[in-house]
Amino acid sequence: MTESPASDPEYVAAVVDLLGAIAYGELTAFEHLAEDAASAPTLRDKVALAAMASAEFGHLGRLNERLETLGADPFEAMAPFQAPIDAFHEHTAPKDWLESLVKAYVGDGLARDFYREIAALLDVDTRDLIMESLDSTAHSAFVVEHVRRAIEDDHRVGGRLALWGRRLMGEALSQAQRVAADRDALTALLAGGVDRPGMDLAALGRMFNRLTERHAQRMTELGLSA
Amino acid sequence: MTESPASDPEYVAAVVDLLGAIAYGELTAFEHLAEDAASAPTLRDKVALAAMASAEFGHLGRLNERLETLGADPFEAMAPFQAPIDAFHEHTAPKDWLESLVKAYVGDGLARDFYREIAALLDVDTRDLIMESLDSTAHSAFVVEHVRRAIEDDHRVGGRLALWGRRLMGEALSQAQRVAADRDALTALLAGGVDRPGMDLAALGRMFNRLTERHAQRMTELGLSA
Repeated sequence: MTESPASDPEYVAAVVDLLGAIAYGELTAFEHLAEDAASAPTLRDKVALAAMASAEFGHLGRLNERLETLGADPFEAMAPFQAPIDAFHEHTAPKDWLESLVKAYVGDGLARDFYREIAALLDVDTRDLIMESLDSTAHSAFVVEHVRRAIEDDHRVGGRLALWGRRLMGEALSQAQRVAADRDALTALLAGGVDRPGMDLAALGRMFNRLTERHAQRMTELGLSA
Repeated sequence: MTESPASDPEYVAAVVDLLGAIAYGELTAFEHLAEDAASAPTLRDKVALAAMASAEFGHLGRLNERLETLGADPFEAMAPFQAPIDAFHEHTAPKDWLESLVKAYVGDGLARDFYREIAALLDVDTRDLIMESLDSTAHSAFVVEHVRRAIEDDHRVGGRLALWGRRLMGEALSQAQRVAADRDALTALLAGGVDRPGMDLAALGRMFNRLTERHAQRMTELGLSA
């Protein structure tokens, strides 16, 4: 990891892309969780979802500060990721409360794993910022408990939600590919540089295996087959 | 102001009502601001509205803690205020982005003024908690700037939004009357007690005058006639 990453304009462009993507992702997560809160079955569920939404938004301030420190406009940094992230949400609009919960859990987990993999290639400060921004484990218990109880009450729910989890994973991968094809700085970041670690094709393959395994673990925690 | 308000069950019941009402009000404010954020015209506006929403939600934790300290279940404390506060929002559903902004500004201001008036009758700890929970002045500049610019661009907007402001005030008063009729402990709180200050009818009248005056000031700040 380079000591003065700010001296490499390609590296800075990639970090700006990454932070912009995470920031826009958290902003839309806020929006969708808040929407789910509005349709929550009880006041207690409403508050739990609203807390998850606020936690997502809470990370935005520090991401935007860092973007400004890097000389970028936060809104310009987010803009390239509006189309793919909005498309992800349009293609995965939950039909009910349980699909919302599974999406919050599985989608958030996938995003977190993916960004953490990339963060491992970055300078320490950026890595720490990303790790902090992705920390939202406090709310997992709420989702796991609700989904498991729903499956206990009606076993058919499990089959439907298992399919839903696969669809979320497929849509996430397809939008990630779209981003990879569009954003040269980001893909160059993955490949590494003279003084920076990177991933060759074999390493990329292993990364996708890890992401898939962790996705499967999350599905199991929810009581669903991946 | 009594030294040990916890010893008076009527007083505690009234405080639980008041904190429950404020908590549910902030929860719905969160929901509606988040909904407005979803339809914001630009990314910058979206972030500003999401920040306002998160700030409302941010107060909930301390209100709920205090409710628990008083021996109350926060969700039970909020429940009696669901119907009147939901009715307020149903009857004042904004038709567009500008109506949303005026509602956020005028509605928030009215609620803040009203709860502050009541807080003046309470013990210091409760009063401080309420004052902190209602502090959201940081976002006013955003709304004032947007509404004033819209009126400059098209003067007819001013007439429409002035009517909208009056409707918000009318609906708030009508729901407040509904609460006053339903919640004996709260109305008893307003009347005062042996060791507590209260308001007679003349004082209540002066309070409504103050609320109306401050509403008119807010409308003027937005460039609207009250």
